[in-house]
Formats: sequence, C-alpha cells, structure tokens
Amino acid sequence: MSGERPRPSGPPTISEVAAEAGVGRATAARTLGGYGHVSPELKERVLAAAEKLGYRANALARSMSTGVSHTLGVIVADIGNPFFAGVVRGICDTSRARSFDTLVLSTYEKLDEEIAATNVLIDKRVDGMIIASAAVDRSTVSHIRTALDRGIPVVLVDRAVSSLELDAVVIDNREAAREAVETLITAGHRRIGFIWGPPVEKAPATRRELIAAASRNLWTDGERLRGYLDALDDAGIPFDPELVMVGPKVEERATQEVARMLALPQRATALFCTENDAVTGALRAVKARKLSYPRDVSLIGFDDSAWAAVMDPPLTMIEQPVHQLGSKTAEVLLDILEGAVPRHERHTLRARLIVRSSVAPPPASP
Amino acid sequence: MSGERPRPSGPPTISEVAAEAGVGRATAARTLGGYGHVSPELKERVLAAAEKLGYRANALARSMSTGVSHTLGVIVADIGNPFFAGVVRGICDTSRARSFDTLVLSTYEKLDEEIAATNVLIDKRVDGMIIASAAVDRSTVSHIRTALDRGIPVVLVDRAVSSLELDAVVIDNREAAREAVETLITAGHRRIGFIWGPPVEKAPATRRELIAAASRNLWTDGERLRGYLDALDDAGIPFDPELVMVGPKVEERATQEVARMLALPQRATALFCTENDAVTGALRAVKARKLSYPRDVSLIGFDDSAWAAVMDPPLTMIEQPVHQLGSKTAEVLLDILEGAVPRHERHTLRARLIVRSSVAPPPASP
Repeated sequence: MSGERPRPSGPPTISEVAAEAGVGRATAARTLGGYGHVSPELKERVLAAAEKLGYRANALARSMSTGVSHTLGVIVADIGNPFFAGVVRGICDTSRARSFDTLVLSTYEKLDEEIAATNVLIDKRVDGMIIASAAVDRSTVSHIRTALDRGIPVVLVDRAVSSLELDAVVIDNREAAREAVETLITAGHRRIGFIWGPPVEKAPATRRELIAAASRNLWTDGERLRGYLDALDDAGIPFDPELVMVGPKVEERATQEVARMLALPQRATALFCTENDAVTGALRAVKARKLSYPRDVSLIGFDDSAWAAVMDPPLTMIEQPVHQLGSKTAEVLLDILEGAVPRHERHTLRARLIVRSSVAPPPASP
Repeated sequence: MSGERPRPSGPPTISEVAAEAGVGRATAARTLGGYGHVSPELKERVLAAAEKLGYRANALARSMSTGVSHTLGVIVADIGNPFFAGVVRGICDTSRARSFDTLVLSTYEKLDEEIAATNVLIDKRVDGMIIASAAVDRSTVSHIRTALDRGIPVVLVDRAVSSLELDAVVIDNREAAREAVETLITAGHRRIGFIWGPPVEKAPATRRELIAAASRNLWTDGERLRGYLDALDDAGIPFDPELVMVGPKVEERATQEVARMLALPQRATALFCTENDAVTGALRAVKARKLSYPRDVSLIGFDDSAWAAVMDPPLTMIEQPVHQLGSKTAEVLLDILEGAVPRHERHTLRARLIVRSSVAPPPASP
C-alpha cells in the first residue's frame, strides 16, 4: 500500500477527474458538461482522465433526481420542409426505440422563435435537445448556452455553428455540391447558374464578398456555395456574379432569376439548385421560355424525392441521408444522456448523387 | 325588488348555469367541459343558460392557477406528410400570434404512439390539444377521454371520430373526391381506378363490404372512397372491385396495382389517387407500360404541390386548404381556452380542384 488515499467508493466525481487531469474543477466541469470554452489541449487531458477513471456524466440520472422526463426536445427550422420532416422521423424512430418521447418545435427560420422554443423546452424539462439552429455566430447563441448551463445536453443537427463547441451531425454539403457541379462541367458546361445564393439584395461582385455574405447566413447554404466555387476552381472556370441568384429564397424568385440567367447574352446552359423549391422554380422558368431539359439546359438539384423520379425526363438529384441524419443525432444525444462524455465532435455523413436524365452536353449554339 | 336572491358577485359558476338550465350540476359540467355524453336537448339548454349568464369556461384561468403554460400540444399522424406539415404550420402561425407555443408529436399512424403522445402532453401540462387521431371507434378513444377528464380541451383536426363529441375541423373529402371523379366521368371515362382503398388483404367483392372495410380505417380514406362511389352512382356506372386498390398504402404497391389495372382486358383509362405517394406510384406504372398521360390514361390526385405544377404535362390536382385547416383548428381551441364554451361542432372546409392538363377523353381503343 502506498500512502495514496484510497479512492472513495461510488462513481468518480468531476473533482476527481479534474485532479487526475491536473486542471481546475471549473475546466473539468465545462469540458464534461459540454459548455463554455476549453482549450483543445486541456480538453484532451480532461477527456483522457475521464476515460481512465470511468467517469459517466449521466445527465439522465441528474434529471431523474428531479423527476424522470425521458423526453427529447427537437427544434428545426421548418417542419414543412421534407428534409426536416425526414430528419425528425429518424430522430423519433431512434428515440422511441430507446424509450424516449420527442417534442418537436418549428421556428420557420426565425431566431426569436428559436429562442422562445429553447425556453419552452427548458420549461418542459426535456432531458436533452437537438437543434437545427438559425444562429450563425457568437452573438446569437446565448439561448443554447442557457440550455447547457441548466445541464441540458444539446446536439446540433444539419447545421454546424462554429462558435459553439458541441457535438454536431451534419451532411457533407460542400463535397455534395462540388460533385454535382463537377458532373455538369464534365458534361461540357461552363455557364452554370447557382440557385440559390445568400439572401442579400445585390449579387456581390467578387467571390470574396460572396463568401463573406454566405458566411453571415446558414451554414448549409454557405457550404453548398463553397462546393460550387470549388468545382469551378478545379476546372479553371472564372466565377461570374451574374450566374448566382441572391435575394429571398422563394420559388417565385428562383423562377425570375433563372429567367434572367437564360436571357443573358451568354446564357446559363446548366443549373445547380440547392433546394426543392429552387428546382421547381427553375423548371417553371425553363418551361416558360419553351426550352426543354436536358437538351437546352441541364439541371441538378437538392433533395431527391419521389416526384423527381417520375418527372419526364427524370431528374438527377442529390439525395441526403435524412433518416440516418436524424437517427445518428438522436444516438449521439442519447449516448450522452446515458453517460457518454460529450466529445464535441462533428459527425459528417455523405450525400449521394442519384444520376438520372437531366444532364446532357450544352447545345451547340445556346 | 322581487324576493329573488341577488346573484353573488363574480363570474357565474357551473352550478348557477345548471340551476338556470334546470339540469344537474354534473350534466352542466359535462356539457361545459366538453366531455362525456349529454343528450342534444339537455346540451342545448345548458348552452343557452351559459350564454344567458355570460358563463366563461376559462380553461386557461384554470391552468394558470397551477402555473401558466401557454402551450398547445399537437399530435399528428405523420409530420413527414406535406399535408400535415402544412397543417402544423397553420396551427403554429395562429397560436404564435396569440402568444402560445406549440409542441408537436408525430405518431406515424400507430395508435400506441398516439396514446403515449397524449400522456406526454398531459405530463407536460399543455393547456389544450389538437389531435389528428388514428382512433376510429369507441374502443380506441380512451386516451382522448383521459385528457378531457383532466380538464384539457381537445379539438380534432382533419379526422372526425364519430364516437367522440368534440369540436373537429375537417376537409370535405367526400365532396372533393366526388367532384374529381365526376370530372373524369364528364371527360368520357367509365373505367376509373381508385388508388388507394382500405388496407385489407383482398378487395371486397361488394360495395357494401368495401364501405364496411373503409369504415374500420381512417375517416378521410373512407370519405374519399364514398365520394368515388357517389360519382359512379350519379353516372350509373357499376362499381368494379378490380378497379379498387387494397393493401398496404405504399408507393410500390400503388405501382403494382396500377400496372394490374392497366393490364385488365377492359383496362382502366383513368386513375383517381388519394395521396401523393399514390400519384407518383401510379405515374411509375404508366411510364413502365410506355403509356403517356393524358393521351392513354387520365389522372387526378390529392394533394396539390409545386411538383405537380411543373410536371409535363402538369397534373390536375385537389388542393386542400392545409394552412387554413391548421389555423382554424387553433382558433377553435384557443377560443375555448379563452372562455368560449365548446359547442362540439364539426367545421368543414372545402378543397379545390386545380384543373391543369392530366385529364383528356379516353383513347378510342384502350
């Protein structure tokens, strides 16, 4: 026996983890609780110590002491979007299989509704939250910090928020967009419209300004724009602001903007659409000009649906693994509730290009 | 002054309403609380007395005494169905405007999940509930009675449940279906497929058995089937069980069944599809047989969407007022919470046939 004090019985505490890691208790608590800033180096030390001692956060046991809830709260941007409907289905299926109920709130992309929704879920004593946040930077995440401070674990879904160190499950939007645009370029296109870009009033003249504008908005949108620019870069095609739609993200606007791009002296011969409404809006413009696809104009869009497959010709679309996105997110959160230490990782799932018949070489004289 | 005892100050009580109506207190409480059975005649007397005395149920004041909630609970069959997504949007917009938050639970058409969801919402102390119920008869509504017994008002949306005397806001599915099928008959069709019917294994041989099978399932589905039969009756066209799809309501099944109907000696020349997945499933079968619409086969479906409008040719579809359905339901519930006496009315909204280009006369020799 050394002079070392024997470990008291019972599960290891945060203080013991802190001592093992050689850090202050506050640092260990922040790391293990998943809130506040901790430098990557200290974080690694705390996580290693937690693993060594077999520390289990057990947020659920914490919540059980104040009454079992067994409820997850889910905040999505728009439950009317089939994408989020599929994600919610994945969350519900997985949490139900692990005996959790799911409360869903939809914010319709308004940050004030997201803040209200977070407060409702705190008030309703959910055990954990999944959020597809409209927050983009440090100034807009205080409601998420509030939840974390109350000891409610949060996992982000679909949209990473760079100023928050949290577990997040997302799709590789940038690579999916790059692959789609590359497919159009390989078919011979050089005039490729991007529907839709950031919701600013006027198209930024330079690609730097365009990326800056995108960074002030939704993470997914910014990633898809970067993927578009990546593909142009790889092929040495210069960026042309006239081929990027900006403004409100509504179907009518997509129709107007595609009509404009099809009327340019050097018109667009291909369209890359980042949402379903952008696809249908673009198709309306193509029809209105009495053009047909893929003969006169090629098209690839997000997200695949039963409709895209029965169009004539059927559309080449990007399919996001929506159910898997939801179920993986629920798994990460439920693991934390059942004792796993949040590692603040970004889990990235791959989208898949479903090749059908909406891509062809550009017409000889467009 | 007569010898009448002066009315005590303060709002009238249930006992005073009962005395005014000349009924027992329990009857008045059941009528004003919206639970249990009360004969139509007594109900009218209680409601008249309540109106005369200016009785306000004020369920909200009741809930405020145990802590303000200002939350509505919504239980829908499948949030992944664009129809319900639109309804939820309508509910959220209206309740938000009246300072209520909305918690949504999706049951994916499973009655046990609906029961669990109701218990979760009772547990989370919502002020009122909106339910699109999978319950069809007296044996399956005890969870809804439980909510009512706890003093939580319930309004049904989209699906009436005949064994429950509750306010319900629904679409006139029967008339919408009748009108659509009449449109096909007017164009000259007599062989009209119905996609999809009740989820039974084998097509009932008689129309009586068919209606009985439909009655054991969803109210909306039964109403649409009745509308189909109404239109056939009006035109003197005999019902043919070979033209009614039965079985699981999935896209693949619709494709198989439409393929079968298109291969009959006297094949179907028109299709009436009661859901989006039935429409896309039917279109796959039409394509697979190298037929085109509306030349070889006409088609009308539920529910209109942006995709239906960009199909080539665009589809004639039934548009349900989904947002209005949600907002009207929220209004009825919020009015009850704010003091209106539940009148247990069925509010019926009209659907609209959006005529596009998927209906033509049948081919000369189909």
